[in-house]
Amino acid sequence: MRTDDRPAGDAELLNPVLGLRHKGYPRTQPPRQRSEVGAAGWNVLAGDLPLPLAVLKREALEHNLAWMQAQVRQWGVELVPHGKTTMSPQLFQRQLDAGAWGLTLANVTQASIGVAAGARRVLIANQVVGDDDLAGLQQLLRDHEGLRIVFLVDSVAQLALIEQWFERHPQALPFEVLLELGLDGARTGCRTHAQAIELAARLRASPAVRLVGIETYEGQGAIGDSAADRAYTDTLMDRVDAVAREAVARGWFECDEVLVSAGGSAIYDIVSARLTPAIGKPVRGLLRSGCYVTHDHGTYQRFQVAIDARLGCDCNDSLRAAMEVWALVQSRPEPGLAILSVGKRDISFDLSMPVPIARAARGQLIADAVPAGWRITALNDQHAYLRWDTPEGVDPAEAPPVGERIGLGISHPCTTFDKWHWMPVVENDYRVSDAVVMHF
Amino acid sequence: MRTDDRPAGDAELLNPVLGLRHKGYPRTQPPRQRSEVGAAGWNVLAGDLPLPLAVLKREALEHNLAWMQAQVRQWGVELVPHGKTTMSPQLFQRQLDAGAWGLTLANVTQASIGVAAGARRVLIANQVVGDDDLAGLQQLLRDHEGLRIVFLVDSVAQLALIEQWFERHPQALPFEVLLELGLDGARTGCRTHAQAIELAARLRASPAVRLVGIETYEGQGAIGDSAADRAYTDTLMDRVDAVAREAVARGWFECDEVLVSAGGSAIYDIVSARLTPAIGKPVRGLLRSGCYVTHDHGTYQRFQVAIDARLGCDCNDSLRAAMEVWALVQSRPEPGLAILSVGKRDISFDLSMPVPIARAARGQLIADAVPAGWRITALNDQHAYLRWDTPEGVDPAEAPPVGERIGLGISHPCTTFDKWHWMPVVENDYRVSDAVVMHF
Repeated sequence: MRTDDRPAGDAELLNPVLGLRHKGYPRTQPPRQRSEVGAAGWNVLAGDLPLPLAVLKREALEHNLAWMQAQVRQWGVELVPHGKTTMSPQLFQRQLDAGAWGLTLANVTQASIGVAAGARRVLIANQVVGDDDLAGLQQLLRDHEGLRIVFLVDSVAQLALIEQWFERHPQALPFEVLLELGLDGARTGCRTHAQAIELAARLRASPAVRLVGIETYEGQGAIGDSAADRAYTDTLMDRVDAVAREAVARGWFECDEVLVSAGGSAIYDIVSARLTPAIGKPVRGLLRSGCYVTHDHGTYQRFQVAIDARLGCDCNDSLRAAMEVWALVQSRPEPGLAILSVGKRDISFDLSMPVPIARAARGQLIADAVPAGWRITALNDQHAYLRWDTPEGVDPAEAPPVGERIGLGISHPCTTFDKWHWMPVVENDYRVSDAVVMHF
Repeated sequence: MRTDDRPAGDAELLNPVLGLRHKGYPRTQPPRQRSEVGAAGWNVLAGDLPLPLAVLKREALEHNLAWMQAQVRQWGVELVPHGKTTMSPQLFQRQLDAGAWGLTLANVTQASIGVAAGARRVLIANQVVGDDDLAGLQQLLRDHEGLRIVFLVDSVAQLALIEQWFERHPQALPFEVLLELGLDGARTGCRTHAQAIELAARLRASPAVRLVGIETYEGQGAIGDSAADRAYTDTLMDRVDAVAREAVARGWFECDEVLVSAGGSAIYDIVSARLTPAIGKPVRGLLRSGCYVTHDHGTYQRFQVAIDARLGCDCNDSLRAAMEVWALVQSRPEPGLAILSVGKRDISFDLSMPVPIARAARGQLIADAVPAGWRITALNDQHAYLRWDTPEGVDPAEAPPVGERIGLGISHPCTTFDKWHWMPVVENDYRVSDAVVMHF
């Protein structure tokens, strides 16, 4: 528990007042602070909150926080979960309390929210380039004693921009940076050993930065354990080892322990095994997985099946889907089709369509399973198309009537979180026991 | 100008304080109320605001507001713009000030924001089904003298849910409703004339509702003027006419003038011509187009080319793209590729990829055109892939260096607006002259 180390933070950020203009807040209830929502006695299936509504299931959430932390501990690496997934100060705090080394974030605005939530180590998994961004980082470092922020550098051109800013700000502290590596066809990162070594030498020589580690993102090339994926991961992580070793040999790291970080979304088990190479200096391996916190019923579930097989886990022991989005059947216009009151504004659609996983008739306080053939075939901004087969051209008796509640599983937590300002945390019986807010 | 009719509204909603935790707000500036941002003297190209940043171009915005209003006036119909596009109280006010009859919205939470922004006529273009939604509507009607809200009904099952709620709330006012029609394969709406007539009779007989018009959404079937699209639109609008005429003949409309509404996204000119049928009673035609306010450089631009041809407009006279998203080149990792600091969290990707439209070198205060071959090929959560051809395997001199600013046009305004809490309004030289906020 790091609670004692954390400042009180910003009340508006951590504990804002929720009210009827927040999507999903009960319209006939008075406004409440986030921290008071759990005491209100609401139940989603009792109809106490308007739909659509995204909910987090407490037990699965807590299971995931503990399970993932136990895994990285066993692997001898640190979890620095990517906060961009949720952008929720309350979930950040739970991740830190569970033992995360710090938080990964994608940019300076996100970093400021992570710091307000209590993070004292921040990895910005991106090139920082803009003057306003560099100024914002210095401001954060000045305002928070003991805060550490590292970001990525992958070109001499980027370093030159940092140096120009640094020369104009003589009071600034040198920036701590990780050298980013990537293979051809990947996203960012130096593409060859020679480029990386040239840049590392420049970083060592620059007064504006301190080189403290090596970073890469394997997810553009490898998302599984096929021979091709294994070869990609090995080539990339071999490159990390070689650059790190050469930088140690040349005395280029300006730190006591070298940070080595990879993404870990789809193959966090495989990359974790490569995050503590023997390079002649202490190494701290940093795994940046973010989606584990809620997991999903789609893309990440499919990744996890393979991870479970590699780890020899029972799938009920590993990550569990902790997010559901509930909606109403608003229309049954023709056989085989129900239109649900949920759309692109409410739920992920970027990797695959939502998955119907539960139903509750009007007035029913228990969620049931849905028939196997139900599927979401399309989303509009504010509508979802739930379809089933009608071999006889007529709807089966099990078709959901207007007013029935349908629970959807998601694919890709990041793009559901960013569609909500708050979410209730629910028990397994859908009683609301807490609430979190999001700051995108 | 309806300014005098409007209440002062909610200061927190209309004029909140913006600060460094709002994405795109300058990190070294003090917080400011939204209304004070225009006086701060910022310029996007001077680097006064961090990127990525979505901006609205004032001149194009005002042109669109005036042009669309002039069109509907000429066609003899009313504009009830769909507010779900922007969810911005300031843009709602501009639309109402320009002459909009009211606002269309997708649900009760959205409606409450439209009303707070000053709308006194609201069309909820959706079935309202939930108890909390019905209670919320009654609350809005009680709280706002003279407010009118209509919503859609397309089934006896939905009516039964409304009646159950109404019976439990003896003080409630009857709900004003539009009967929704749709053809087979469409989204919501009664599928046959007979279904519609049966439901209309039930609506007339119900104490819980008053039938005041007919509504349809043509966009699931017709987005152009091909023979198939024309036939679809004619069939659908003929159905609207026939149901409206029969309902008039039977005395089922409980109103002095019948509302007839269609969507109008892609073929607003064609549907407008069908919104004032001769049915033996005064008709008010309501066009719900929403994306016209900012237009785009993608899907809606392609629709507009066909509309311009039908109207005989010069494309510079009709709708103009008023939204751009600017980002930094953060990496140039290999020939033919720049990674921009903008991703799925910042810009639309649901209908087509963003389009590079402008560039400004670091320090340059003027935006230039981009080479013809530049295109965005993919987005991650926080990154965009800008590619160009490298026939010789090396980058041309015109390739953008790290630190260059790139302006992107969007496709589908709705799904860019929902990724921001505020946007600056800029002059053509990118001076910030105003700001709007969004409430999704």
